[in-house]
Amino acid sequence: MADQIYRVNMSTLTFTVEEVPTAWMGLGGRGLTSTIVAAEVDPECHPLGPNNKLVFAPGLLSGTAAANSGRNSCGAKSPLTGGIKESNVGGTSAGIMAKLGVKALIIEGQPTEGKFYHLHVSKEKVEIVEAPELVGKDNYEVLDAMLEKYDKKVAVMSIGRPGEMRMLLSNISVKDPKGKLRSHGRGGMGAVMGSKGIKCITVDAESYKETTLADPEKFKEASKVFTQALKDNPISGEGLPAFGTNVLVNIINEAGGLPTRNFREGQFEFAENICGETMAENIKARGGDTTHGCHAGCVIQCSQTYNDKEGNYLTSGFEYEMIWAYGANLGIKDLDVIAKIDALMDDLGVDAIETGNTLAMAVDAGILAYGDGAKAYELIANDIAKGTFLGRILGGGVGNFAKLYGMVRVPVVKNQSIPAYDPRAIKGQGVTYATSTMGADHTAGYAVATNILNSGGHIDPLTKEGQVALARNLQIATAAVDSTGMCIFVAFPALDDPKCLPALIDMINARFGVSLTGDDVVNLGKNILKLERAFNQRAGLTSADDRLPEFMKYEALPPHNALWDFTNEEIDAFWDF
Amino acid sequence: MADQIYRVNMSTLTFTVEEVPTAWMGLGGRGLTSTIVAAEVDPECHPLGPNNKLVFAPGLLSGTAAANSGRNSCGAKSPLTGGIKESNVGGTSAGIMAKLGVKALIIEGQPTEGKFYHLHVSKEKVEIVEAPELVGKDNYEVLDAMLEKYDKKVAVMSIGRPGEMRMLLSNISVKDPKGKLRSHGRGGMGAVMGSKGIKCITVDAESYKETTLADPEKFKEASKVFTQALKDNPISGEGLPAFGTNVLVNIINEAGGLPTRNFREGQFEFAENICGETMAENIKARGGDTTHGCHAGCVIQCSQTYNDKEGNYLTSGFEYEMIWAYGANLGIKDLDVIAKIDALMDDLGVDAIETGNTLAMAVDAGILAYGDGAKAYELIANDIAKGTFLGRILGGGVGNFAKLYGMVRVPVVKNQSIPAYDPRAIKGQGVTYATSTMGADHTAGYAVATNILNSGGHIDPLTKEGQVALARNLQIATAAVDSTGMCIFVAFPALDDPKCLPALIDMINARFGVSLTGDDVVNLGKNILKLERAFNQRAGLTSADDRLPEFMKYEALPPHNALWDFTNEEIDAFWDF
Repeated sequence: MADQIYRVNMSTLTFTVEEVPTAWMGLGGRGLTSTIVAAEVDPECHPLGPNNKLVFAPGLLSGTAAANSGRNSCGAKSPLTGGIKESNVGGTSAGIMAKLGVKALIIEGQPTEGKFYHLHVSKEKVEIVEAPELVGKDNYEVLDAMLEKYDKKVAVMSIGRPGEMRMLLSNISVKDPKGKLRSHGRGGMGAVMGSKGIKCITVDAESYKETTLADPEKFKEASKVFTQALKDNPISGEGLPAFGTNVLVNIINEAGGLPTRNFREGQFEFAENICGETMAENIKARGGDTTHGCHAGCVIQCSQTYNDKEGNYLTSGFEYEMIWAYGANLGIKDLDVIAKIDALMDDLGVDAIETGNTLAMAVDAGILAYGDGAKAYELIANDIAKGTFLGRILGGGVGNFAKLYGMVRVPVVKNQSIPAYDPRAIKGQGVTYATSTMGADHTAGYAVATNILNSGGHIDPLTKEGQVALARNLQIATAAVDSTGMCIFVAFPALDDPKCLPALIDMINARFGVSLTGDDVVNLGKNILKLERAFNQRAGLTSADDRLPEFMKYEALPPHNALWDFTNEEIDAFWDF
Repeated sequence: MADQIYRVNMSTLTFTVEEVPTAWMGLGGRGLTSTIVAAEVDPECHPLGPNNKLVFAPGLLSGTAAANSGRNSCGAKSPLTGGIKESNVGGTSAGIMAKLGVKALIIEGQPTEGKFYHLHVSKEKVEIVEAPELVGKDNYEVLDAMLEKYDKKVAVMSIGRPGEMRMLLSNISVKDPKGKLRSHGRGGMGAVMGSKGIKCITVDAESYKETTLADPEKFKEASKVFTQALKDNPISGEGLPAFGTNVLVNIINEAGGLPTRNFREGQFEFAENICGETMAENIKARGGDTTHGCHAGCVIQCSQTYNDKEGNYLTSGFEYEMIWAYGANLGIKDLDVIAKIDALMDDLGVDAIETGNTLAMAVDAGILAYGDGAKAYELIANDIAKGTFLGRILGGGVGNFAKLYGMVRVPVVKNQSIPAYDPRAIKGQGVTYATSTMGADHTAGYAVATNILNSGGHIDPLTKEGQVALARNLQIATAAVDSTGMCIFVAFPALDDPKCLPALIDMINARFGVSLTGDDVVNLGKNILKLERAFNQRAGLTSADDRLPEFMKYEALPPHNALWDFTNEEIDAFWDF
């Protein structure tokens, strides 16, 4: 049975199951969500209105035995940036959707305001059931209810109260293999799901078949080479398994690019307290688990279980970006406090980067003090979760906060807040922030790899030379990788091991019986970026939106006293391809 | 002595007095503020940062005896729209600046945050004095302090607490001839003044000389013809003096275009309670004054003094837009309650349209009920004035409110809220809203004149035909008129009396010894619009911003069940000139 498009209309509460149009057949993940959004969504529509669409699509290799292929993409017009959005996530949804033959799930229309539904996707069927009993619940409670109702392997995607309230920092949360939560983060995808009146989507894991392979032998062989490349690379094979993504705290701090106290400094004096090494020591001492994967088939295992001093579970999936946002940027120096906030945010389904950065703005506005973890927790648990007036202010994210308080230091691009690498001190990453179709997004083209980690060579992070080309090449490659269902960390071996990328392409060829070349993959990446940019332009974004915040041009970042010194012309040359 | 440019740098707390560059000599009012902003302000700068500039320029005829020439223009990059802004006002500042020879006052830079200054402009001098004693005061208290310090005729421009807090709905307030306040409204000009650390600007009225005229005889003659044209026209000569601008309530209600309960209906069942006729009766019965002018030399006298039942002063300058915003759109049916809110808003310096419309959004969000005037008053007096969390939410205006509450019905264009004429039922006005460089602005091209009032002919308000050309011609003419210092109501005789416009041009020629033709004036208007649009494009605005809110395309407005039905191409053709 060929894959199919599942389409749900929330205005009429009906669904159809459709053949995959020829033009979409070779696409998956980001390539497919962006193609569908660009083809079917009016770029001028209100992102929370009836004319936006929410699209889920597993990657091309999702559902196979390929290592690290379990990412699911979610796309829409973003209510945060006003442009196109793709956000991919681990968890179990990609594999289950792929095995069920769901090429994409497209959700359109809008029900009566205030009504919330549960969608259950099974073979050629979508049940659309009003679910008043789930309203006002957060993610873990919804997850428990679903696990009670269905087979334990069921895929679950849900929103917490912030998503119901259509807050711009809300995520869509996804069940992972250990029953914890992963997030379609950034861009306010939770608000889009909330605006569609959908509290929860489950995907049946009982009726699926294993994914068919056109050439199982060739697939197996390529898969072996690919897996070995992931294991041989010092970052994906050693650093990430040992310390998680949080290995970066010391590295980025050392480089002077760890944004500290709302992007005022590039080094945090308490980095030692919150770094990956300290985290790994705590886990060892307290009986947690340093290595687990966010999805089945992960061989990197950068996730972990983090316990408190008494050995009780605190959180999992405790990532660098989160620890940076609450640690260096909000000044909290106690990893356990940050872990509690992490678990809270998972349950509510709010974006760690946007929420943390907004709290740093709130410090500047006098609402809390740097380092006050208890107050930060309370602002999320009491204000954001309940939608108090202050909660609504925080729920709008950094850009809107700045508008309400008349603030000039606004660390956003396209209204999405800047992640954990200061662009003044890690300039390649800055070019990605400026030019990404997604707004400030570290995953769109991770130039930190070459600026700091010496993957794919080395380009001095403090000089401008070579950064635009670097960010361009990485963004092209990432757009392609985001279409395969692969996790972004395959970039490390792909940049340095000549066997890695050919093996990845061989797996795609063996899966579908096609014969893609490296050039085809590069062209796929280029086409995705151009398609997304064209959507953004029709939505009203221009080169003037491909800019870092103005204050970074005149406020130097210690210790290097680095400024953002690219001209507009230099940045705009990014699009010359 | 020739006119001069006064330039104040708030970073260095210094000033210069400069010769007028040749290119600026023939310009005044909006033509001059927009030219200076376009020439000197980086369109990509943060509007509340050090690189924006705040410019004041009296009109070409300000300071002369020409009737209705007392409008002062204020320009900057708007923190509300992100584009260029010009806002003109009556009061005494235009005449006094013109007589002092201040061609324009340009304020640039930014002092240490939290410090506020008082600028005193006198002949070839600007005193820049820190004024901590004025911080936290509202406009009338500041005005009283200035009247104690200076000659009673001194011009005063100030901001209240919302401007200090850089709220996007804050105005700059200007003393009028009766010691009451007028507003540079819309676009958040009060926030820009607040961001410059300026609480108050005074302009010396003792050292000025009368404006010189190149040909006093010719001027006198043209002035007579012009004044007569204003008096002969039924709208400027009868309707406005008798009922004020509030004469429009019954007219627009009758036309089904009076936005009611947040743009849900086109007629308000209590229109009778709040209309101009009722207001005039109250004034007569209670001993107010139906006719006074907002500036010296006004022969229309559409302003008034409005008292309560006991004959005590309530407010003045009680305008249609204000009465509509709190009456029909917020459902308050008691004119006295609206009058109290009007006086409060004058004192605080907040925009009547943006504030009223934001409160209507707050009704939709469940914060107050339609018609609850006491609560509306309290939200302004307690929340907005004090900057509570709710006050900050409201202070961001309609567009930002919608973002925080995830609302889809957002009556804004370029993030500025739509005034008192529903574009679905008065389509020519809708074209102005969509295309104006200022965001939704009824004064930018008042198509109500021809759609409803039959000035300059008649074009059916409910059909599309002819509306784009009408809005284009009116916007071109208005941009020119906004440069003369004339009030917008000269449009009525100008549209119907063939003697009016030539007389206006003759006055300009006699004032400066030039020989402008009608074509020159049209070209001036065209050039201003194009200059402003080019600035907006460089700032990142596109055709996608020349759009009415999406909900007006699918939500029909009773009683005509009118939709906004222009295609994008039809609207974009506005710029074909």
